[in-house]
Amino acid sequence: MKKVYFDNNATTPLYDELKLNLLEWLDLWGNPSSVHWAGQSIKGRIRDARQALAKFLNVSPLEIIFTSGGSESNSTVIRTILEIIEGSDSQFAKTNKNEFITTTVEHPSLKKAFEMLEARGFKVHRIGFSSQGEFDLSAFEKVLSDKTALISVMFVNNETGLILPLKEIVEKAKKFGALVHSDSVQAFGKIKIDLQDLGVDFASFSGHKFYAMKGTGVLFAKKSVPLSPLVFGGGQERSRRGGTENSLGILSMGFMAEKMSDDSFFQDKNKHVKNLRDYFEQRIQTEIEQVQINHESMDRVSGTSSVVLKDVEGEALLMALDVKGFAVSTGSACSSGSSQPSASLQAFGLSPEQARSTLRVSFGWYNTIKEIDSFLNELKVVTARLRKLAGPREVFLSSEINNREGISEL
Amino acid sequence: MKKVYFDNNATTPLYDELKLNLLEWLDLWGNPSSVHWAGQSIKGRIRDARQALAKFLNVSPLEIIFTSGGSESNSTVIRTILEIIEGSDSQFAKTNKNEFITTTVEHPSLKKAFEMLEARGFKVHRIGFSSQGEFDLSAFEKVLSDKTALISVMFVNNETGLILPLKEIVEKAKKFGALVHSDSVQAFGKIKIDLQDLGVDFASFSGHKFYAMKGTGVLFAKKSVPLSPLVFGGGQERSRRGGTENSLGILSMGFMAEKMSDDSFFQDKNKHVKNLRDYFEQRIQTEIEQVQINHESMDRVSGTSSVVLKDVEGEALLMALDVKGFAVSTGSACSSGSSQPSASLQAFGLSPEQARSTLRVSFGWYNTIKEIDSFLNELKVVTARLRKLAGPREVFLSSEINNREGISEL
Repeated sequence: MKKVYFDNNATTPLYDELKLNLLEWLDLWGNPSSVHWAGQSIKGRIRDARQALAKFLNVSPLEIIFTSGGSESNSTVIRTILEIIEGSDSQFAKTNKNEFITTTVEHPSLKKAFEMLEARGFKVHRIGFSSQGEFDLSAFEKVLSDKTALISVMFVNNETGLILPLKEIVEKAKKFGALVHSDSVQAFGKIKIDLQDLGVDFASFSGHKFYAMKGTGVLFAKKSVPLSPLVFGGGQERSRRGGTENSLGILSMGFMAEKMSDDSFFQDKNKHVKNLRDYFEQRIQTEIEQVQINHESMDRVSGTSSVVLKDVEGEALLMALDVKGFAVSTGSACSSGSSQPSASLQAFGLSPEQARSTLRVSFGWYNTIKEIDSFLNELKVVTARLRKLAGPREVFLSSEINNREGISEL
Repeated sequence: MKKVYFDNNATTPLYDELKLNLLEWLDLWGNPSSVHWAGQSIKGRIRDARQALAKFLNVSPLEIIFTSGGSESNSTVIRTILEIIEGSDSQFAKTNKNEFITTTVEHPSLKKAFEMLEARGFKVHRIGFSSQGEFDLSAFEKVLSDKTALISVMFVNNETGLILPLKEIVEKAKKFGALVHSDSVQAFGKIKIDLQDLGVDFASFSGHKFYAMKGTGVLFAKKSVPLSPLVFGGGQERSRRGGTENSLGILSMGFMAEKMSDDSFFQDKNKHVKNLRDYFEQRIQTEIEQVQINHESMDRVSGTSSVVLKDVEGEALLMALDVKGFAVSTGSACSSGSSQPSASLQAFGLSPEQARSTLRVSFGWYNTIKEIDSFLNELKVVTARLRKLAGPREVFLSSEINNREGISEL
């Protein structure tokens, strides 16, 4: 059976050319901190990777910190600000900055970090969206004040591909001297990111979302802003992140950044993905009844399609498609395994039923029109079947899912 | 020129058989949280790796948490205890446990973590060693009390290979209800580790110290002890460590644990390494004058040799050997780049001059007797030369080193 992967927002395959390089890089196993040949052979390559990422994001290499991924980058920012606020000698303590602003649709790593802050007694404002998907700028302006320490707003939403008005948010924030962080994990490789132009103070990225390796990520931190290490260690990353460098991971990210710095490459890949998405959305709307595309008329990244299939139970759909070799999602991968309707989709104004009936298809560089054709054929069959069965059948399937998850990882 | 790597305590090459597997594993790029085929194909393998590590360390798979490495594992433990102490609802707050005990020779990640605790006003006791290298148990017992929250003691020292009396320390600690953490990064694969028998509550391990990949590690945390995540995220690692799993890294550690669970394999490797070390130490003592082997008569792991070469400037030695293709160390890799004499060696009773004149040779599975022969030939020549030049020349070389490091990574 041919496998078709339409879940590129959850993770991407390794880029083919990168795989070939990895074979060569396996011999660069030295510790970059070692001053002898084994360390030096890799140290220069890490520097090159840092420069490639800095160039791609239009910042200084000094502002690129290698981490283990997006969640660590996010956690580092929140804990840094917490430590600054709680530290008696900081400028924040003096200015009485102790409030936070975020959105209702952030990644679990940020959701949990903000819950931790609330448990410690800090005020966290969560800004929502109109039913059309517009970020509520007026609510944002209402809570923004001199007391705002940090604003954390994702750049691109993982579920619908919605692009948030980050630059506008930063401009408003700067008037109050607030720091701005953006979880930009879903933006890398999908839209041009000029961090200097955006004006954010912190941004998070994750290698495995842009065809590089897992277990590696980037934290951008502006030179002028404070940063206290989450992971203590030797002097690595200019004492901002300890631990022996994940050199293969870092090189893989540098390689992809270098590739994507080539504008025609970048445009080609994104045009390809957009063509797939447009083809898919055009056909599904014509060929399947009672279909609604989330954020269809909003500013979206090109590869993500979030579709409400009325009266279709999403998890049952996912599994029926999986049996036929199609990998799709019904929400963020991080929350799968639980059968709760996606909180983010509900924050975007969908009812629990609509959220539960949402299919997320995220296209990548390696997908083809032919794959969409066979996918739509299957989707039509399964949708029709599930719509017939809607009701009591749904309950039965949920318990099936739970059993399947019961024997999970641990 | 043939390259000889004698710095296996800094990092190890990838195990050959593992490299072959990596090629196959590159196709397992799914997100383990995904419920479809792409996620499930890797999820089971992660479970197997967890089981292999748990078996090797004689604990439950539920007690194995995958992290990005030893420094993160260490940092997680210290921050967890800090949060418990500062949290008003904990058993610690009630019992007034707020003191820490550690040693004078810990890894930088722990040194810095304890400095952070001191900056927050906590009492940290640092236990030293006799000039022979014996852990000062009586000093330890003197500061141990009902107020002790956490004791953090490395299992094997990275510089001399010294094995610390961990089990004895745990036994004494338990009488006072103190938790015990051990940075056991340098122990994995070198001595048998039975965590249940040792009785520690937490232990840290790092993949790249035992022929697995970089950017991956293990935190052992006993089921009964509290753990708050350092990296927030989805429900990964049973909500104890967020972030998409570094699947290749995890599989590489599982593979090595499985290999080393085979007792004859484990014995063979360690016998080989011990033979190399003994051969080296026997010859260097016979053939080079004014040589002193640190912790020679103490309980040591088999592959590490820490040698004071009187009147030889260590960094000059390192570089002269590097030019000839020999990779050795003069201290922990993490502190190299600075020309300060090793604080740990001084804590072991060496003078700054002795510490500066210390050569660390750490043997690994891939080293041979022949390599030692050629190394000793070179070492004799370089030692003689540097001894002749000792004095004014040393100053000149230090500045050379600084220049070399000045154009370093960033």
